[in-house]
Amino acid sequence: MEKPQNGEKEEPKASICGYDSLHRLLKDNLNPHQFQEVSRLLTGLNCGKALETIALPESATALSVEHGFDLQAFSFCADKELLREPRVVKVGLIQNSIALPTTAHFADQKKAIFEKLKPIIEAAGSSGVNVLCLQEAWMMPFAFCTREKKWCEFAEPVDGGSTKFLQSFAQKYNMVIISPILERDINHGEVIWNTAIVIGNHGNIIGKHRKNHIPRVGDFNESTYYMEGNTGHPVFETAFGKIAINICYGRHHPLNWLAFGLNGAEIVFNPSATVGELSEPMWPIEGRNAAIANSYFVASINRVGTETFPDPFTSGDGKPAHADFGHFYGSSYISAPDASCTPSLSRNRDGLLITDMDLNLCRQLKDKWAFRMTSRYELYADILARYLKPDFEPQVISDPLLHKKSS
Amino acid sequence: MEKPQNGEKEEPKASICGYDSLHRLLKDNLNPHQFQEVSRLLTGLNCGKALETIALPESATALSVEHGFDLQAFSFCADKELLREPRVVKVGLIQNSIALPTTAHFADQKKAIFEKLKPIIEAAGSSGVNVLCLQEAWMMPFAFCTREKKWCEFAEPVDGGSTKFLQSFAQKYNMVIISPILERDINHGEVIWNTAIVIGNHGNIIGKHRKNHIPRVGDFNESTYYMEGNTGHPVFETAFGKIAINICYGRHHPLNWLAFGLNGAEIVFNPSATVGELSEPMWPIEGRNAAIANSYFVASINRVGTETFPDPFTSGDGKPAHADFGHFYGSSYISAPDASCTPSLSRNRDGLLITDMDLNLCRQLKDKWAFRMTSRYELYADILARYLKPDFEPQVISDPLLHKKSS
Repeated sequence: MEKPQNGEKEEPKASICGYDSLHRLLKDNLNPHQFQEVSRLLTGLNCGKALETIALPESATALSVEHGFDLQAFSFCADKELLREPRVVKVGLIQNSIALPTTAHFADQKKAIFEKLKPIIEAAGSSGVNVLCLQEAWMMPFAFCTREKKWCEFAEPVDGGSTKFLQSFAQKYNMVIISPILERDINHGEVIWNTAIVIGNHGNIIGKHRKNHIPRVGDFNESTYYMEGNTGHPVFETAFGKIAINICYGRHHPLNWLAFGLNGAEIVFNPSATVGELSEPMWPIEGRNAAIANSYFVASINRVGTETFPDPFTSGDGKPAHADFGHFYGSSYISAPDASCTPSLSRNRDGLLITDMDLNLCRQLKDKWAFRMTSRYELYADILARYLKPDFEPQVISDPLLHKKSS
Repeated sequence: MEKPQNGEKEEPKASICGYDSLHRLLKDNLNPHQFQEVSRLLTGLNCGKALETIALPESATALSVEHGFDLQAFSFCADKELLREPRVVKVGLIQNSIALPTTAHFADQKKAIFEKLKPIIEAAGSSGVNVLCLQEAWMMPFAFCTREKKWCEFAEPVDGGSTKFLQSFAQKYNMVIISPILERDINHGEVIWNTAIVIGNHGNIIGKHRKNHIPRVGDFNESTYYMEGNTGHPVFETAFGKIAINICYGRHHPLNWLAFGLNGAEIVFNPSATVGELSEPMWPIEGRNAAIANSYFVASINRVGTETFPDPFTSGDGKPAHADFGHFYGSSYISAPDASCTPSLSRNRDGLLITDMDLNLCRQLKDKWAFRMTSRYELYADILARYLKPDFEPQVISDPLLHKKSS
C-alpha cells in the first residue's frame, strides 16, 4: 500500500520501489514532449488518435477515495463506419489483495473478500460498466504454492456462494460479470477445476470455462489441485458482445488465444495471479501480442499484494523454506487490436480499470491487416497433425559441410 | 541521419523527433535508479542478472566511427549446466538505408549498397560474429509500394551477384550469413519470390527459405510482386546452431513462429522493412512474444530511412499521390527466451548489433516454463482442421435471455 511517488528526480533508491506504475513513473519524470513520444512507442498512442480519459460519476470516485483503490478510466478510438453503428462496450477489471490473514477462518476470509470487493463493484456498476471481470480465484488466497490440500475447502460449485454474491450485482447494474473461482464439480466425483463463470446481465448463469493450460513452473504446479480444462474454447455471446476467458497461464500459449479468436471472440479476458520475479517483464507483452495477432481486445488482470501462509514451504530452488512466494504486481491493463493499450493499474494497490471500447474496431483491424486471410491455416493444421505423431521428423536442412568439417 | 540527443531535459519539441532510440532517451532523462527499474520492466533485465555490454576490437569501433553507423554489443546470460558446455554464439544484425537515390541506374544502386555494407560486414567479421543477418531485400530499395514492375529487375537467382558478394565474407570470416533478397526463380518460369538465402561459414549455400505470409496492407500489397512461399518452415543446421528465418510480415502470425519452433529452431531471424505509422508500437512486442512463447532467440531487423521514388503513387487512403511511404525506423533488437531483450539500434542511422547468446538458454527455459509440454497440440490440430472446412461452426454459448429480451 505504498503511495505513488511525487516525481522528484533525485530521490533515494528506496522510494523507487514505491512507484505506483510504470506509466506514472515516466509521466512524472519526463518532459511532456518526451513523455508523448515514449507513450507512442510503448502504448501505441498519440499516433494521431490519443487514448482519452473518461469522466466517471462522483459516486465512483468517492468510493475510490474512501476505500483507497486505484480508479482509472479510458476510451479507445475506432473509425466511424457507414453501415454499422458503433458498438461501444464499457469494460471493468478489478484487481485486489486478500482481506484477512490466511490464518483466519476460511469462511471469514471469503466473507472479508466479499466485503472488500463490494465498493469496487459498486463503483463499476454506478459507472455503467457493461462487462466486469474479477481476478483468477478471486474468492481465496492463491494458496497453491503450499501444496496443502486443505485449501480445496475454498472450492465452490458453479452456482455456489461466490456466484450468488455476484448475481445480485449483475442484476442490479445490468452488468455481465466474469467470476473466476476454484470450482468443485459435484456431478463428477467432486473434482476441482480452475473455472471462470459467466453471469449474464440479468443475473443468470450463461456458462463456464475451465482453464486450458495448467502451469508447472516455480511455485505454480497447479496440477496438484486441478487438471487441464475440458470445456474447449467457448465464446460467450452476451448482451454486450462476444467474450471469452483465457485463464492465467493460458496467456503464454498463442494457440489458446488463437482458438478463442477462431470461435469469434471480440474481447478475451485474462484473469491471472502472477508474481514479479517470475513474469513481470512478460506481462506487458503477451496480452498486447494476442490483441494484435487476433484482432480482438484483451483485458489482462493480475492480483495484488504478498500473501503469507501459516506453514512454510520450499520452492524447488534450493532456498530455505519460506512463507510467501512473491509479490503479485497488479498492473492490470487492456490492449486493443490496433496495438494500443491503456496504462496499467497500480503495482501495489487494489484497483478498478474502466475502458470504453467500440467492438467495431475488431473487424476494422481484420480488414486493415488481413491476418486471418493471410494465415494459411492448412499449413499449420498439417504440421500440428504430423508433430503429434511419435515419429515426427522436423524439417531440418543441414549444412553438408558440417559433418565433413568435423570428420 | 539526425544526431542522438544529448540528454538535456528542457529541449524544444523539434529535438524529440531526433532522439536516437527509446533506450537512450530514457537513460538520458531518468535518474539511474529509475532507469534501472524501467529497464527491468521494459527489457526484463536487472532481475539479478543484467545484460552486459561486451568489448569489441578497436578495428570495429573505428569502422563505426569512420562510417557513422550505430554499433552496440551485448551478452545474454544463461545458467551453467553440469552436463553441457555453454554454446555461445555471436549474432550480428545489420540495418541500413539505401545508398543512392532511386533514380540512379539500377546497377549503380545495387553496387552502392554493396559498398556501403562492406565496412559494416567487416566490423561484424572482425568482431568474431558467427551468424550475420541482413535486412529484408537488402540489395534494393523497398519499391513495392510503387506497384511498378520495373523494380523486378533487381531480382536475382539464389546464386546471383548478391550471394557471391556475401560468400566471400562468409569464407573470410568463417561466418554464416543470412541474405534476404528479391529472388528470381529461373527454373520455374522466372517467377519472383521474397527469399532468405543461408550461406554457410565456408561460403557454401546451405539453402533458402521463401516468405510464408505476404502482406496486403497499406502500401504493402506485396502480392503484386511475389506470392506466399513454398518452402515450408525449414530450420537450417549450421556450424553455429539451428536457425530459421521468419521474413517480415510473418512476425504477425504466431503459427509461423510456432512452426519454426516445432522444427527445432534455436534462433529465428526476422528481417523486415516496416514504417513508423504502420507498425512501430507493434515492433517491440511481437519479436519478444515469439521468443517467450517458443523458447528460442529472436533477432528482429528493420531497415532505416525514408525512400523516395521517381513516380508518385497513391496509398489507398484518400490522400494525394506522393513519392515516399514513410520512415523505416530501424530499431533492430534481439529477444531471449527468458523475456529479456537488448536495447534497440538507432531509429535513424545504419547500425550493427552484436549479441552473444548461449543457446543452452532455450532448453533451460523449456525446462523452466514447460510451454511445449503443456501445449495440448491435439486440441489445436483439431480446431484448425475443423476451421478449414467451409461449414465450420464456432463454439459459441449464447445467453438464452439475449433473444428473449429483444423479442
